[in-house]
Amino acid sequence: MSKNSASAQPTSDRASAGPSAREPGAAPRRNVGVPVVFFDTTLRDGEQSPGSSLNASEKLEIAHQLARMSVDVIEAGFPASSPGDFAAVRTIAREVKGPVICGLARCTESDIRTCWDAIRDAERPRIHTFISTSDIHLEHQIHLSYPEVIKLTKEMVELCVSLCPGDVEFSAMDATRSDVDFLAEVLATAVVAGATTINVPDTVGYALPDEYAALFETLYAKVPALEKVVMSAHCHNDLGVAVANTLAAVERGVTQVEVAINGIGERAGNAALEEVAMALVTRKDLMQRPCHIVTTEIARASRMVSSFTGHIIQANKAIVGKNAFAHESGIHQDGVLKERTTYEIMQARDIGLSESDIVLGKHSGRHALRSHLAEIGIHLDGPELDEVFRRFKATADKKKEVTTADLEALVGEEVRQREDVYSLDHVYTNAGTDIISSSQVGVSTQGKKRTGKAFTGGSIESIMLAIDDAVGVKGKLLDYQVRSITSGKDSLGEVRVVVEVEGKRYAGQAVSIDVLEASAKAYVRALNNVAMGREAGGARGDRVYL
Amino acid sequence: MSKNSASAQPTSDRASAGPSAREPGAAPRRNVGVPVVFFDTTLRDGEQSPGSSLNASEKLEIAHQLARMSVDVIEAGFPASSPGDFAAVRTIAREVKGPVICGLARCTESDIRTCWDAIRDAERPRIHTFISTSDIHLEHQIHLSYPEVIKLTKEMVELCVSLCPGDVEFSAMDATRSDVDFLAEVLATAVVAGATTINVPDTVGYALPDEYAALFETLYAKVPALEKVVMSAHCHNDLGVAVANTLAAVERGVTQVEVAINGIGERAGNAALEEVAMALVTRKDLMQRPCHIVTTEIARASRMVSSFTGHIIQANKAIVGKNAFAHESGIHQDGVLKERTTYEIMQARDIGLSESDIVLGKHSGRHALRSHLAEIGIHLDGPELDEVFRRFKATADKKKEVTTADLEALVGEEVRQREDVYSLDHVYTNAGTDIISSSQVGVSTQGKKRTGKAFTGGSIESIMLAIDDAVGVKGKLLDYQVRSITSGKDSLGEVRVVVEVEGKRYAGQAVSIDVLEASAKAYVRALNNVAMGREAGGARGDRVYL
Repeated sequence: MSKNSASAQPTSDRASAGPSAREPGAAPRRNVGVPVVFFDTTLRDGEQSPGSSLNASEKLEIAHQLARMSVDVIEAGFPASSPGDFAAVRTIAREVKGPVICGLARCTESDIRTCWDAIRDAERPRIHTFISTSDIHLEHQIHLSYPEVIKLTKEMVELCVSLCPGDVEFSAMDATRSDVDFLAEVLATAVVAGATTINVPDTVGYALPDEYAALFETLYAKVPALEKVVMSAHCHNDLGVAVANTLAAVERGVTQVEVAINGIGERAGNAALEEVAMALVTRKDLMQRPCHIVTTEIARASRMVSSFTGHIIQANKAIVGKNAFAHESGIHQDGVLKERTTYEIMQARDIGLSESDIVLGKHSGRHALRSHLAEIGIHLDGPELDEVFRRFKATADKKKEVTTADLEALVGEEVRQREDVYSLDHVYTNAGTDIISSSQVGVSTQGKKRTGKAFTGGSIESIMLAIDDAVGVKGKLLDYQVRSITSGKDSLGEVRVVVEVEGKRYAGQAVSIDVLEASAKAYVRALNNVAMGREAGGARGDRVYL
Repeated sequence: MSKNSASAQPTSDRASAGPSAREPGAAPRRNVGVPVVFFDTTLRDGEQSPGSSLNASEKLEIAHQLARMSVDVIEAGFPASSPGDFAAVRTIAREVKGPVICGLARCTESDIRTCWDAIRDAERPRIHTFISTSDIHLEHQIHLSYPEVIKLTKEMVELCVSLCPGDVEFSAMDATRSDVDFLAEVLATAVVAGATTINVPDTVGYALPDEYAALFETLYAKVPALEKVVMSAHCHNDLGVAVANTLAAVERGVTQVEVAINGIGERAGNAALEEVAMALVTRKDLMQRPCHIVTTEIARASRMVSSFTGHIIQANKAIVGKNAFAHESGIHQDGVLKERTTYEIMQARDIGLSESDIVLGKHSGRHALRSHLAEIGIHLDGPELDEVFRRFKATADKKKEVTTADLEALVGEEVRQREDVYSLDHVYTNAGTDIISSSQVGVSTQGKKRTGKAFTGGSIESIMLAIDDAVGVKGKLLDYQVRSITSGKDSLGEVRVVVEVEGKRYAGQAVSIDVLEASAKAYVRALNNVAMGREAGGARGDRVYL
């Protein structure tokens, strides 16, 4: 073992001993040591992703979790897009304390005034307005000339400032495909008009990191006033580099990052909050930019968003995937046992995961449940707590242990049921190889009990046809997924469906010990969304993304 | 519409009109115009990811698909790790034509000779040997001094060259956390000893793009001989930047990229082949590095790997996620209808997706099935074709249309059943709200028929306990997932399970119209893996990753 012991420093110190990350001739760094502002758009760009449909209660729960994680800004929605979105944004503005609460608005007077009405009661409101600046969007879509865009930018940002002085964000949609001189002129106009944050989105996910960083460099050079406002990055992951683009922008002095939990969002989604945050924390030696994110809340936020939106997280997803902290290979396990840092640059507990997640047993009482829910940030009382307690006991009776993940799943379903039109009374199914499956169901709607029955090829199909029979609707199943939330044969199963009714798509999700019961409930849930006109993603004419 | 029409160029031309991606003072670019070598490690690093377990037939199918996609090098496995892996690598070396077939070997004589025996029959074989170079690995794990590592590198690379002259790859494990002077010395030694490809892996996923690129710059400066060999990047995605690191290395002249389909691999996985390839293609204006990848084979490769390994792809995964090409928002749809490039930088058909994927109906014959399978690269004859045809007819009878995705799922199961010990004869289940589920099953094993039964809380649980009862094994369900492969209530459901038996983990997957039948088959499949000692990922002492 004749190694030079001077070179055996711990990992975190070794980085700076390696090759320099800054090249000779590279531009000087701006804002070293300045905290990065985390602007979370899970509830706006993220919520618009196909297949997800969050109701007002779910949005509020997520907003509370974002506050608990100390994000700096919550983009709560796009108030002018629908009365439902307006109401959700207003509730979040009134109830969630801590972060700035932001609403999105196109550059029109009515969008901006509607947005302000939704967010005005927040402790710290922000209006976020945007307009396209790329030739391709101007020519083919919004049909405006350069001078018209400049004029609108000036007038609409001034309107925002008159309503919400001191916190107005302006975005140049499709900035990365815009003529850079025109883009600079638009941004300079927005700053003069009073915008305090300037966002330069890569709307179509086209930029690569060096290129995106160089765009900020160019803009700083052309518009010196940009040094006085908060510059912001908003990246899409179409080419797989959203996080790298975001970090490259931060290295050039950008102070705000627009991100979403689990990287959800239009198409391939936005830069993932958890990846950007853990990169800043893990590579603070190189990035030299602190952030306020409470990383130990990441795992819970990720599970909550996955559960409410119905978007499953793949096993090898960075940070929050099931395998992200799985140290499997023999050589690797051997190394980690000898010295953790041989293969581990982060620890599972840094993001709030723990080995012993068991929290409650079948003898736990209502008070213990209430306290534990409060600890994980879910505040329930009265009939809602009673209902969750009833479910908890039913689960605890069948399982030996009830974990935090179980509870979050149970509460997720409870929160969702607050607004239901239909509820499942019973389902019975007979199935097997070489026999025709049969199901019978009972569904209640506004006091009336209806029954339905069906014979058909598969057990799930027979349940759904029986529900169609009871409710009098014809749904087409577009997507069906099940996963176990916890391990063990007696684990809770979570079913997610996407159903098409009359050309529109609706999502449903439910949790149960029995996958058939969960399937029935998820389908009924989707029909509830049909009844309430809550479409899943597609074809909302007033939805946009940056 | 008084716009300057001179600025309304198509998207692909606009990029160069934007800010320059190269900064003043940056190093000159190497290898502009030189094709990037795609080294696919799906079958080695990818196959080691927890929860996946590929058998020899599945590995061969994937290797054929990789050849069809024109990857340049297939890393087929780690022959010294197990007799099964040796046999799989040898079969691929003998049967798959086109790409270089590579095997991994530690820097030991026995690993290297075993590797050579497995790959020697390939048209173009490659031995890939590696050793750790970081202080943290040397001190805490492999217990070698710097001079000892240099000596081993020289001797073992020379051994590789004596067996496989002209194509030897050397990797410095944990290169990004190594002392750069020592790393340079090791790499110089490997080049002098005859290595033709030098790989600089970011084993623990610690590097950021500028830093990783600068490491190559430093190595080129310290070891001019590196200009004469193929330099290679191998990146892990722990911080979400594996693809960006890979592209940054390519921009500095690196010629080989080590990637995996769907980005699978240890922990957060490797750089995704499809993301690196589509970034090179979509941004050829900026990257200026062609590649040979047939991108229209990407969707099929992605589905095949997902199906065989049991790793579900999340909806917002770049390129191959279900939503990656979903244009959902109203403004967006409006834009795309007016002019595709307003929001679309790639097209679904570029990766082999198409709107009309319907290929066969219930009247299609055995010959049509055989031809279509051959078209999508699956060659079946004799009893195997008979069996797939029987399943195809059963599916076509229940569904109106059978798609390529359906066929791939059916064949996936068929390929898997070639080696089964247990097979499911029947399953009958009774389930419902407020009743105890009951199941009865019949399982055949080597001619004997066994039956089992169980009463319990959930329908899936009762099926699995009944199978345990029939087979005489006690399995613990660690993970359970279902998804529909195609849409419609009568779509095929795919079930994936991970089961623990006596402390070891086994995976199983199956497809059926009925989710209960698929669950039973997937569980039986996992028990087949138990019987054949085919563990899923965990605790294989001889498995490594770079």
